[in-house]
Amino acid sequence: MATPVKVYGPPLSTAVSRVLACLLEKDVNFQLISVNMSKGEHKVPDFLKIQPFGQVPAFQDEEISLFESRAICRYLCDKYADKGNRGLYGTNPLVKASIDQWLEAEGQSFNPPSSVLVFQLAFAPRMKIKQDPAVIKQNEEKLGKVLDVYEQRLGESRFLAGDEFSLADLSHLPNTHYLVSATDRGELFTSRKNVGRWWGEISGRDSWKKVVQMQKQGA
Amino acid sequence: MATPVKVYGPPLSTAVSRVLACLLEKDVNFQLISVNMSKGEHKVPDFLKIQPFGQVPAFQDEEISLFESRAICRYLCDKYADKGNRGLYGTNPLVKASIDQWLEAEGQSFNPPSSVLVFQLAFAPRMKIKQDPAVIKQNEEKLGKVLDVYEQRLGESRFLAGDEFSLADLSHLPNTHYLVSATDRGELFTSRKNVGRWWGEISGRDSWKKVVQMQKQGA
Ligand SMILES: N[C@@H](CCC(=O)N[C@@H](CS)C(=O)NCC(=O)O)C(=O)O
Ligand SMILES: N[C@@H](CCC(=O)N[C@@H](CS)C(=O)NCC(=O)O)C(=O)O
Repeated sequence: MATPVKVYGPPLSTAVSRVLACLLEKDVNFQLISVNMSKGEHKVPDFLKIQPFGQVPAFQDEEISLFESRAICRYLCDKYADKGNRGLYGTNPLVKASIDQWLEAEGQSFNPPSSVLVFQLAFAPRMKIKQDPAVIKQNEEKLGKVLDVYEQRLGESRFLAGDEFSLADLSHLPNTHYLVSATDRGELFTSRKNVGRWWGEISGRDSWKKVVQMQKQGA
Repeated sequence: MATPVKVYGPPLSTAVSRVLACLLEKDVNFQLISVNMSKGEHKVPDFLKIQPFGQVPAFQDEEISLFESRAICRYLCDKYADKGNRGLYGTNPLVKASIDQWLEAEGQSFNPPSSVLVFQLAFAPRMKIKQDPAVIKQNEEKLGKVLDVYEQRLGESRFLAGDEFSLADLSHLPNTHYLVSATDRGELFTSRKNVGRWWGEISGRDSWKKVVQMQKQGA
């Protein structure tokens, strides 16, 4: 068996769980290395050598060390093209371009408002940080507009980039999971017919169910 | 000669100029189609068919229509692998992964504060919109921290992803150009030795000089 790749960071982090979902889809053997963020282990010099921004995840495989969850996912799909879900990053150039397009839409348009909402609505209360109602309202409106675009797109195709589940859909799992399961704003998704159908389908994948299990075990 | 690809949007837009720089590096023939944003042409139904978020650029090539500037750049490098600058998106998997990593760092960490600063410092005054000093201060601090990471990285390698100019460097041109040329915050870049050296090098490329020329002509 090949040496497992290494992922540094807690599965509760959205960016870490994005990489874990990809590893499970691709059936790539991995070792999870804990980084205790409440102790600031992501800001110590040794960690900064592999993630200079002091964030999780960091990643290592044989001769390469990487950061940025979406770049790690792309690398995994290229390097392990023949393992697990082979269509995750497309098998022809047009589909791959469509996956890149919707993966960018996730990173550029969906992630900013949804990660603010995840922080404000799910994490701030647990961390006894005061919520900011104006920030919540503004980002809810932004996210709603993005989901209106998704609603139309998902009326034309089963998944964002086409008829198959891809990295573009996968990348939405971490934030959406928290918004639907750990806040009272799940309706943003479930009240939109096609988005709700899509969310049911992608969140039901075995890979994602395993990630949620890892999050519950606080692994 | 092959049918030119189509780019919709004004070169003054940072996202449009990212794609133009890539086309010029790759020596791909293109046709620029004007979208009058002050008349709201990016929000009309026909445009929303090719860019559902109502933003520029939109892009078409033979049977494909795409949006998201960084996804368009990736597509151009894959499709026109043998044209122009062949190393722009790497020629081996490890270099490609490093390019993806720094391209993601640009999109996720560099672009958010720098695009806010470009708007606040360069565009708001021209549009007679009131500047927000608190927003400026906060984003200047954020950008400074990102550039500290770049300063260290660019002390180890000539360009962000390694020894060759790549899509990762290119993607920084549009925002940095405005910050250095159209605001008084150029020192953020030039006061950092390695970042300043890098900026001099990447902004001096013929491809980028042509884009700046197109911006001046308001083409
Ligand atoms: N764009 C990065 C974002 C990484 C990120 O924001 N990680 C968060 C946890 S989800 C973190 O480490 N936060 C701590 C910090 O920024 O200090 C990626 O996708 O990998
Ligand atoms: N992530 C998109 C961003 C596109 C974008 O923000 N375009 C701006 C001009 S630079 C725009 O169209 N703004 C008008 C609007 O959002 O209504 C890309 O990289 O293509």
